[in-house]
Amino acid sequence: MVVLFFSLDRKDGVNHMHNKEKQTDVIIIGAGLSGLAAARTLKKNGNTVTVLEAQSRVGGRILSTIIKGSILDLGAQWVSPHQHRIQTLIKEFGLTTTPTYKQGTSLYSLLGKKKRGLGNKPPFSPLSLLDITLIEHTVKNMLKSIGPAKPWEVPLGQKLDSLTMETWLDKKMFSKYGKAFYRQVYEEGLCGRLSEVSVLDILWNIKSTGSFNEYLSAEDEWITNGAQEIPNRIAEELGNNVLLNQKVWRIDWDETEVKVYTEEGVWFSKNVILAIPPTLTNRIVYHPPLPSSRDQLCQRIWQGSVIKCVLVYETPFWRIRGESGIAFNNYGPVKATIDGSNPSQKEGILIAFVTGEEARRLGELYKEERKIQVLNCISYLFGHEGLYPKEYFDKDWSADPWARGGYAGHFPPGVLSQFGEALTKPIGPIHWAGSETATEWRLYMEGALEAGERAAIEVIKKLT
Amino acid sequence: MVVLFFSLDRKDGVNHMHNKEKQTDVIIIGAGLSGLAAARTLKKNGNTVTVLEAQSRVGGRILSTIIKGSILDLGAQWVSPHQHRIQTLIKEFGLTTTPTYKQGTSLYSLLGKKKRGLGNKPPFSPLSLLDITLIEHTVKNMLKSIGPAKPWEVPLGQKLDSLTMETWLDKKMFSKYGKAFYRQVYEEGLCGRLSEVSVLDILWNIKSTGSFNEYLSAEDEWITNGAQEIPNRIAEELGNNVLLNQKVWRIDWDETEVKVYTEEGVWFSKNVILAIPPTLTNRIVYHPPLPSSRDQLCQRIWQGSVIKCVLVYETPFWRIRGESGIAFNNYGPVKATIDGSNPSQKEGILIAFVTGEEARRLGELYKEERKIQVLNCISYLFGHEGLYPKEYFDKDWSADPWARGGYAGHFPPGVLSQFGEALTKPIGPIHWAGSETATEWRLYMEGALEAGERAAIEVIKKLT
Repeated sequence: MVVLFFSLDRKDGVNHMHNKEKQTDVIIIGAGLSGLAAARTLKKNGNTVTVLEAQSRVGGRILSTIIKGSILDLGAQWVSPHQHRIQTLIKEFGLTTTPTYKQGTSLYSLLGKKKRGLGNKPPFSPLSLLDITLIEHTVKNMLKSIGPAKPWEVPLGQKLDSLTMETWLDKKMFSKYGKAFYRQVYEEGLCGRLSEVSVLDILWNIKSTGSFNEYLSAEDEWITNGAQEIPNRIAEELGNNVLLNQKVWRIDWDETEVKVYTEEGVWFSKNVILAIPPTLTNRIVYHPPLPSSRDQLCQRIWQGSVIKCVLVYETPFWRIRGESGIAFNNYGPVKATIDGSNPSQKEGILIAFVTGEEARRLGELYKEERKIQVLNCISYLFGHEGLYPKEYFDKDWSADPWARGGYAGHFPPGVLSQFGEALTKPIGPIHWAGSETATEWRLYMEGALEAGERAAIEVIKKLT
Repeated sequence: MVVLFFSLDRKDGVNHMHNKEKQTDVIIIGAGLSGLAAARTLKKNGNTVTVLEAQSRVGGRILSTIIKGSILDLGAQWVSPHQHRIQTLIKEFGLTTTPTYKQGTSLYSLLGKKKRGLGNKPPFSPLSLLDITLIEHTVKNMLKSIGPAKPWEVPLGQKLDSLTMETWLDKKMFSKYGKAFYRQVYEEGLCGRLSEVSVLDILWNIKSTGSFNEYLSAEDEWITNGAQEIPNRIAEELGNNVLLNQKVWRIDWDETEVKVYTEEGVWFSKNVILAIPPTLTNRIVYHPPLPSSRDQLCQRIWQGSVIKCVLVYETPFWRIRGESGIAFNNYGPVKATIDGSNPSQKEGILIAFVTGEEARRLGELYKEERKIQVLNCISYLFGHEGLYPKEYFDKDWSADPWARGGYAGHFPPGVLSQFGEALTKPIGPIHWAGSETATEWRLYMEGALEAGERAAIEVIKKLT
């Protein structure tokens, strides 16, 4: 496809050339994993596609970087052996995975105390452990009553949507450590507060992984070559069907045609797939405007706040002391850590997540000051060696104008049961992808692939 | 001010002329009541202003129309005698108010039954009335512990922010009718569900009116000349400082200068005031991007769904039967009605509000079908005469691209206590107005005025 640029008067959408070169079957907005998966599915089916990406790179919330020979992931990184789509791509592209290092003791820094536990078992009192067992039993039972698609349609889903996770957990759990641990784990996962989501938001995510046990496998391994290899390879296949630096600002649509405006031109197609975070879909101007149910849904889905920090040390010093590098922490900015060292290199890599309010607070500091606060917290958790990494990198996803948050989008109470339908329902020629719209492994890379494929199939059915 | 239009290449912001004619002290985005109040305050202080309004009219969520000699309000309409800013303007512009007709019985259509009650007293059992008295007592007590500015800063505010109004009311009230009535009143007020807001969201609104009793006076009278007379008159004073049809799409800013881009040009100033609903502030592109705390706040504030319907009958037939025309209803699309007849005319005007899910459902119907469903509901409430208005008008505020909801913006749980500060905190030269940012009569026209004046004073302090 040859792309011709021409100047565009923004005032109206009529004084452009109707350039046949810019006509494809489907336009896809966003070259994250979901948009690329949609494009790939469509291209394999023989359709012509144009992927418009605002940034100068593909990958969206996946971002790998190579520093002095080390591949570091500053965005999505982990995969589960149960995620068949991404595992297929890993094999197809000849990539490899590394099992997450989990040997030794993990650190539970909760309620002002640091405790160590082996494996997945927190070092709490029998009563707290019973509390955790019981709540997991309750969750597993509730999961039986909701489906992975439209869980708000069943009575239990409606009920769980009217309650915040905060209120529910407070009522259901009785032990101080059990509650503190569960709160810690889920707030870190949300990159927000438990009061900000309905119980259904969290349960739907768990359900979409298959089962509670599969959900626990989500961080079992990571892509050794860097997660961005996957979007890079798909984009390579798509060649010049992927256009970078194309910031879409307007979409004109009717039942038969779509015009997509970027700062550099207008693209034409019969259908468009938006594969960007829901909150960002509302930042595009639509002519005619979208129905209220869709617009107001996206007024309500929020992205979490997260800074991912990658710390490269001379050695994985925690391992020598019999520690896994895994920490849960509610004191200081770093809420969770995990070992990300590459077995083929001598360096130790510790990955630290600053989430929620702390992410917003640290995000407004100068980088050097932020680094000091992160390292102080690491040293609180892992001792003074933590203060001296060879290299420090971080990425504030909340500040990224093309993500404006991470890990993903969540639903406050009362939203899914009223607006859930509008999350994926096409509006004329406009279709919705992105991990937030998935029903399998929602909010993971696997979910991004599933959602992209689903949106592509919707369009293929219409085109044939 | 002379405005010169010139074509603008959207690709970058540098190839414009630096037109001295387009330089003012302050740019105000949005010519709703709040933006106009800000402009008026600044102009009175001797500052130069430019108000950029996207639509071809001023007024924002205030919209009056004259049909066959009758002035009808399709947007904000009522005022309280306790609202001193708007009352001052009413006097200053020589306008008048009409007391809301409240004689006779009001209709309480709840739980499948229609009951009538005199005055403000619902015709419920003594137990239900006790329940209502007790909850109001509780609310009044809680109001003593929070201030009208930053109520999230006190411990009670933090606690009330973590609970949904749904959960709280369910726990605090015990009678079926008491609960149904309270739910009805507040859900109609929110134009959403009680599970969608924190208790603090509602309490802050009440607190900002002064007291629970002043809160109850909010619909005591309406502006006989049409509420839009007020923005119209202010705009008249401002003359060609108000520019219509200027859709702002981008703001470039640093500590010393602001460039505001519309589809037709670039405006320059030292400061800008955004007087538009919070969710819409996120639909502008900022260079550099706004801090996460502000962006993510506006990902979380939602506008309600509402269609305001104005029905003009030959006579106010309900009055003849000793009815006030006031109804609370949870059966069918119309959730509330009120008499809006002009005493100087023989016609009877009934105003009906379709809110929440019903507003979104009816908003997607053809106008004729929507009208039938509204009239059927009116006839259910007021008898078959309700089926035959001389005129029917409605306005779907959720569908309006420059409002995208009504009456106003609300906060889900966990938002005010984390993000409240960012609601009004200036970001460099960017200031925030709009009724949602008010601390007096939040979400009313009075709040729009207060917020506009407050933002103007912020800027004046900086300029002097």
